[in-house]
Amino acid sequence: MPKKYFYFFGDKKNTEGNTKMKNSLGGKGANLAEMARIGVPVPPGFTVSTEVCDLFYRSKKSFPEKLQPEFLKYVKKLEKASGKKFGDPVNPLLVSVRSGARVSMPGMMNTILNLGLNDRTAQTLAAKTKNESFAYDCYRRLIQMFGDVVMEVNREKFKITDKNLSEQEQAGLFKDIYKKECGQTFPQDPLTQLALARDAVFKSWNTPRAQTYRELYKIPHTIGTAVNIQTMVFGNMGQDSATGVGFTRDPSTGEKMFYGEYLINAQGEDVVAGIRTPHPINELKSRLPRAFNQLKQITSRLEKHYKDIQDFEFTIEKNKLYMLQTRTGKRTGPAAVKIAVDMVREGLIKQTEAVRRVQPDQLNQLLHPIFDPKEQKKFPVIAKGLNASPGAASGQVVFNADEAVAQAEAGQRVILVRSETSPNDIHGMAKARGVLTATGGQTSHAAVVGRQMGKPSVVGCGVLKVNEEKKLFVVRKDGQDITVKQGDYISIDGTTGEVMTGDVPTQESEVIQVLKEKLDPKSSKSYQHFAKLLGWADKIRRLGVRANADIPSDAALAIRLGAQGIGLCRTEHMFFAPERLPIVQKMILAKTESERKEAVNQLLPMQTQDFVGILEAMQGFPVTIRTLDPPLHEFLPKKEELMVEIATAKMELSRFESNDPKKEELVNTIQSKEKLLSRVSELHEFNPMMGHRGCRLGITYPEITEMQARAIIEAACRLKQKGKKSLPEIMIPLIGTVAELTNQKAIVNRVAEEVMKKYGCKIPYTVGTMIEIPRAVLTADEIAREAEFFSYGTNDLTQMTFGYSRDDAAKFLSYYVEHKILPHDPFVSIDQTGVGELIKIGVKKGRATRPKLKIGICGEHGGDPASVIFCHHAGLDYVSCSPFRLPLARLAAAHAVLGEKS
Amino acid sequence: MPKKYFYFFGDKKNTEGNTKMKNSLGGKGANLAEMARIGVPVPPGFTVSTEVCDLFYRSKKSFPEKLQPEFLKYVKKLEKASGKKFGDPVNPLLVSVRSGARVSMPGMMNTILNLGLNDRTAQTLAAKTKNESFAYDCYRRLIQMFGDVVMEVNREKFKITDKNLSEQEQAGLFKDIYKKECGQTFPQDPLTQLALARDAVFKSWNTPRAQTYRELYKIPHTIGTAVNIQTMVFGNMGQDSATGVGFTRDPSTGEKMFYGEYLINAQGEDVVAGIRTPHPINELKSRLPRAFNQLKQITSRLEKHYKDIQDFEFTIEKNKLYMLQTRTGKRTGPAAVKIAVDMVREGLIKQTEAVRRVQPDQLNQLLHPIFDPKEQKKFPVIAKGLNASPGAASGQVVFNADEAVAQAEAGQRVILVRSETSPNDIHGMAKARGVLTATGGQTSHAAVVGRQMGKPSVVGCGVLKVNEEKKLFVVRKDGQDITVKQGDYISIDGTTGEVMTGDVPTQESEVIQVLKEKLDPKSSKSYQHFAKLLGWADKIRRLGVRANADIPSDAALAIRLGAQGIGLCRTEHMFFAPERLPIVQKMILAKTESERKEAVNQLLPMQTQDFVGILEAMQGFPVTIRTLDPPLHEFLPKKEELMVEIATAKMELSRFESNDPKKEELVNTIQSKEKLLSRVSELHEFNPMMGHRGCRLGITYPEITEMQARAIIEAACRLKQKGKKSLPEIMIPLIGTVAELTNQKAIVNRVAEEVMKKYGCKIPYTVGTMIEIPRAVLTADEIAREAEFFSYGTNDLTQMTFGYSRDDAAKFLSYYVEHKILPHDPFVSIDQTGVGELIKIGVKKGRATRPKLKIGICGEHGGDPASVIFCHHAGLDYVSCSPFRLPLARLAAAHAVLGEKS
Repeated sequence: MPKKYFYFFGDKKNTEGNTKMKNSLGGKGANLAEMARIGVPVPPGFTVSTEVCDLFYRSKKSFPEKLQPEFLKYVKKLEKASGKKFGDPVNPLLVSVRSGARVSMPGMMNTILNLGLNDRTAQTLAAKTKNESFAYDCYRRLIQMFGDVVMEVNREKFKITDKNLSEQEQAGLFKDIYKKECGQTFPQDPLTQLALARDAVFKSWNTPRAQTYRELYKIPHTIGTAVNIQTMVFGNMGQDSATGVGFTRDPSTGEKMFYGEYLINAQGEDVVAGIRTPHPINELKSRLPRAFNQLKQITSRLEKHYKDIQDFEFTIEKNKLYMLQTRTGKRTGPAAVKIAVDMVREGLIKQTEAVRRVQPDQLNQLLHPIFDPKEQKKFPVIAKGLNASPGAASGQVVFNADEAVAQAEAGQRVILVRSETSPNDIHGMAKARGVLTATGGQTSHAAVVGRQMGKPSVVGCGVLKVNEEKKLFVVRKDGQDITVKQGDYISIDGTTGEVMTGDVPTQESEVIQVLKEKLDPKSSKSYQHFAKLLGWADKIRRLGVRANADIPSDAALAIRLGAQGIGLCRTEHMFFAPERLPIVQKMILAKTESERKEAVNQLLPMQTQDFVGILEAMQGFPVTIRTLDPPLHEFLPKKEELMVEIATAKMELSRFESNDPKKEELVNTIQSKEKLLSRVSELHEFNPMMGHRGCRLGITYPEITEMQARAIIEAACRLKQKGKKSLPEIMIPLIGTVAELTNQKAIVNRVAEEVMKKYGCKIPYTVGTMIEIPRAVLTADEIAREAEFFSYGTNDLTQMTFGYSRDDAAKFLSYYVEHKILPHDPFVSIDQTGVGELIKIGVKKGRATRPKLKIGICGEHGGDPASVIFCHHAGLDYVSCSPFRLPLARLAAAHAVLGEKS
Repeated sequence: MPKKYFYFFGDKKNTEGNTKMKNSLGGKGANLAEMARIGVPVPPGFTVSTEVCDLFYRSKKSFPEKLQPEFLKYVKKLEKASGKKFGDPVNPLLVSVRSGARVSMPGMMNTILNLGLNDRTAQTLAAKTKNESFAYDCYRRLIQMFGDVVMEVNREKFKITDKNLSEQEQAGLFKDIYKKECGQTFPQDPLTQLALARDAVFKSWNTPRAQTYRELYKIPHTIGTAVNIQTMVFGNMGQDSATGVGFTRDPSTGEKMFYGEYLINAQGEDVVAGIRTPHPINELKSRLPRAFNQLKQITSRLEKHYKDIQDFEFTIEKNKLYMLQTRTGKRTGPAAVKIAVDMVREGLIKQTEAVRRVQPDQLNQLLHPIFDPKEQKKFPVIAKGLNASPGAASGQVVFNADEAVAQAEAGQRVILVRSETSPNDIHGMAKARGVLTATGGQTSHAAVVGRQMGKPSVVGCGVLKVNEEKKLFVVRKDGQDITVKQGDYISIDGTTGEVMTGDVPTQESEVIQVLKEKLDPKSSKSYQHFAKLLGWADKIRRLGVRANADIPSDAALAIRLGAQGIGLCRTEHMFFAPERLPIVQKMILAKTESERKEAVNQLLPMQTQDFVGILEAMQGFPVTIRTLDPPLHEFLPKKEELMVEIATAKMELSRFESNDPKKEELVNTIQSKEKLLSRVSELHEFNPMMGHRGCRLGITYPEITEMQARAIIEAACRLKQKGKKSLPEIMIPLIGTVAELTNQKAIVNRVAEEVMKKYGCKIPYTVGTMIEIPRAVLTADEIAREAEFFSYGTNDLTQMTFGYSRDDAAKFLSYYVEHKILPHDPFVSIDQTGVGELIKIGVKKGRATRPKLKIGICGEHGGDPASVIFCHHAGLDYVSCSPFRLPLARLAAAHAVLGEKS
């Protein structure tokens, strides 16, 4: 049991607390004490500590009897410090009673102002301020607040119907209401008021509202709140009084400027409530120059003292300045970066601290186009989906990829809206400004590709009824159907998931303009800050970062974004190119092995060119190339579409005369479609995600692996002939048993030997595997006998570990997260308990066999800060993510190291 | 290094080996020694041990020089024992040289007969047997065999074109051929012949053929073969000579009778080759009474000695009986059971040994209908699929479930043929004699339901092109298309996977007739044996057995088959009943919660009746009832079918005049179908196996769990009112995180309290969970906080652990097993390395939290003997399987205990 329960603050000498004592004093109390301690003028007061809150709850919600004498001692101390006395008819002490926990819970707990007023002191206040209506307004508010907070009388009960009553008469009426509702008169004794108010603050810690808030933000229920009892000061004591709030720097841009607002002759509430329009703080200089200068000096000192931007509140009572609050200021992403970099330059903080100050997610705001916040308000939000890929986009709606391409090439801005997207839509997604889908979760095709392209995307927007045939979608909102047709403008915000009708103006960030080489880095301060901060992060982090990229231009971008290699180059995206798809289909539909080999061989020169491009772009950095992964039917038309086409064509058949030559043509069409349907049906799978894909394809169709291995090694050999280095890592997907890898590795090695012999050179390639099947984790020791590296495919691993199909889970996952069955969407941030456990098992088993085994992660989680930190602690060598996520990953990796040290 | 390399056998005194020395002597050598040791007449000989084989391979495939003197000593010993000499012109020694490994590898290695013949001894043999053609035929065969085995000359090279040549001339011709092919003359020195033959036998151990055989049957390559050199005896020395083979009991029925065949004046090969028709062995009594009696006495003694049925070979040379081989006789399932039971009664073996002697799979033959083996040969096999549910069935082909019901009720035997089956087909499957599908694996719907119903099923028969619309299927065989139409007869063998055209006669086993209460158990010996053996198994085993059963009649059957409870009662099967499906669909299509609740409430009385039935049938044994598991769209029509119907109807629309009232009707139909399609599309999932199913349904639609819990507890309460005990265990499926179980358990407990209060009684129900999601295993310690029991759902667990969809994996699994990427189909027998590891982790973690946690398994593996044994060792409390698998599980569980002791 600690000996000290109460902490005084007021002047340097008598102040007992400091900023480090947030556990006992709460954030507000600790900062008030700190300010007082360093000589900043604060109205005197004292803090009843959180330990008392604990005792209060242990004593069946009553203030511990034995602490009563000490409490009264502090009241006396306060009276002495303020030179005022509770209930004194001449110089009455008025106080505020406020809660203050270790962690801020804005608006969650109770506050009582003007405590100490009663019939007599109200009169005194009126006389002293020469403002009767102000004084009785204060009294009236106290009665109402007290009734609400202490006696639990609904605020609405305090109503004034007769508008002609004076403030004093209104106060009288409120006392009557109080008596009627509470069955007792409003307590005139200020000490009684104080005791009741203090206890009411403690009780407010456990309201359902506060409990819910804590659960939401993961704040422990046990930390309790402190109670701050502080002398009231008044900014509304005339033209020499004022009140205001401010920041030591611009929290929106980070610019170093005095920033804030004030009102003359007003109370703090008036600034916040917006009843009167406040003035820019610099204008205070001409109104109350002495107080202004003092304020500027004090806040500047506070910033230096706290070594961070301060968010402060002040009141000037009759030319005398009081600081009421100071705390670390919240800021936007761009401001966070600029302030961190500036403060290092100013010598306030070290580089590591600058890195620690910026949250990885904040970097998003520097990377993605954004809506003009003022403009945005004018447009109605019609739906909200999952915020799959951040950034803002607006344009005309199109419902298929080809039209997206056509219209974009005609110079229009388009938003591609689909029920869902598939690899067939990639060309359209590339040309669209943004993508909106009705189904799919955070790692659905649209989401993954959207993020990879840095394309604003909202997915899984279930309220959308998309009719691709009729080219419209319908949203039901407030009992009405809103229909959006092709060509209508919509705007989507990939950062919030909001969908708006209309064309909300957007802007591309400077950083992006530099990265896309549209803007000289020298002319962008924000890029320079961004680059400097990430440079510091790079010096701190040990975890490598790589990019998921399939094409040379993405690879080049990835290098500019700090990639140290490619962690995942998907080869199937190359198969969907329009000029290749027919050959791929020929390969699939082949009846004989030789027919299939012929088609595969046609793909060889194309794939070789692909790999020459990407290996060259990566300038000798390692490039992990995954062999073919998706099920073959993804390359064929959909079964149900074919069935409808055939049925329709057959109906049509009956319309023709029997000798009509068109009839024969139609019969032929039907026959060829039926043939195609038969193959599509053969390839149809109930659960394609767990079907004939990944290495299962490479094993049953070895010629595909053979062709891909040949293309990779050929590409590396050709580059070597031109004197260029390359480092291909060939990755076999979906391994579940070591025998699969043995099989595929043998093919790769055989082909590689052949090709290297032909070119007369050696390529330092390696062969490894994705770890994405639970069984691969469980047998990682066996698999590591063959695998020269592991790369966790956490998308699939999450699917299999939970038994969630990422394309379907959106239907219940949002419900799960909302009802706290899951803490978060496991496709967004690694499930550290389940999937994380598997990752750790795999690392342990893999390195038991091969101690220096290189292990990375190439799932979507590679760009999620929490997951990056997890990967660091799990002992991985690198994370790989989509290029635009690289900055986040670099910063998060640095945070992981900083977290280790602290 | 052992000191002994050669083992003599011949008479009691000189014999050096015995039956336990199979590792050194091989099976044949050890049994020859054993017979000699106990005084059974065997032609003398000696065995070159497997250790010599090992040295032979270590010496670069040559006989170790240092063993040469010892080898020659044994040759001398043999000459002495036989009273004959190699190469002796008067009394020449002839021997056979045969391989013999520890494990029998029939036909895989080499044998040479009549070794010791040369130009001179052939003449002697001719004179002694007074049969020149016999003697030279022997010589000729030796030359050919020797050329083939020792010199690797193709047998075909030894051809006789001139049919007029005498046997002696033919032998001369063979010597010429030998010389031409080998470049040297046929060795005349018997010792040279012997050395070369011995080494050739050793070499034959490593032919590719033998290696493949060992890989197939998992025989280690390192055990090596022994070589048996044994004096030849001749059953073709006249009317006082004979040869034959036999069993000490009927290997087909197990009947205790002397069983076998013989030929007078013949060699062993003649009996086997079927050149002459042999006679029943009992007829030998009248031909050679003394030898016959001796044979009967000896074999009877051998059976007593070995305590098992013997499969023997003998030769009578001039009235003298020689035993050439004895070994444990192979037998059918029914025979195995009968023999085991009989031998206990005869005092030959103990009950545990009887249980050990019968392999669980052998019980299948007593349980399933079988084809008449003689009749079966007459019908052509047109295809082979997976042997999903054993037994034989024949009947007329139907292509949909309704027609199966209609025709079966009209008295026809039908076989239901489908591309795949779904829960919609269950009524048809129930009425069909057998089920044949083109797709799906060993745990596809058809396979699982087939086995559960004990219905012969062949699934995944990929060569079948099923056209359900046209009501036919086509199979391509030998370049020709065979078309089978509705109404044609086919026969399927679920034990072998074979499909035949035509109506092969079948018969239901006696055991089944008893179990189905069509036959009095007292009148069936085979049932009595079966029941007795399983009774003994029950005394040995510790693992509990339960049945997977959904309806009272299955539950009753399960009890007759030894179930100690129901391990899995699926509630969804109840939802598919024709009168319920519309209500279920109403529930799914409901737009509001109240609409849905109304439909759910309509189901309540029906479900209550279901549970009354099954709980009552189980007579107080525990009944594990699983809440709703499958995705909702399984209860709705298929998306593509609806799409085709709508498209077709729309085409049709244009044919009507605009005022045609039928047009309006059609428009209405289209609209309602479009509405249905829209809901079906909403519910559509890309990977339904990992979609919105299991507890995910119960959580998002709590009214379903509520209704099911109410029905279960109501049923138990009503039974209690009637004085009947019941023990419901409510099982929540597809749990991946403890929060899911907490949620569902709370619903169940709340409802149970309500119902028990209403009835004023207590039901000893428990709430537990399936463990079928890898994450459930990884967090089993957390889950066990809530779960009162675990039941492994190894079907799903195997799916998720491997990432194999059981409905799709057939496409590559057969390839995988064939190419040894997997040792076996993991849906048939538990993958002990991966899935097994998870099972062990889950047991450990679960019992860490709740030491006495009851853990079972209710996947398909519960009826697979190897998996049952695994479950025993993993510490599970029980296995649950389809009723007809219960005998196998009981026996396998006993084997698990016996395996522990040995």
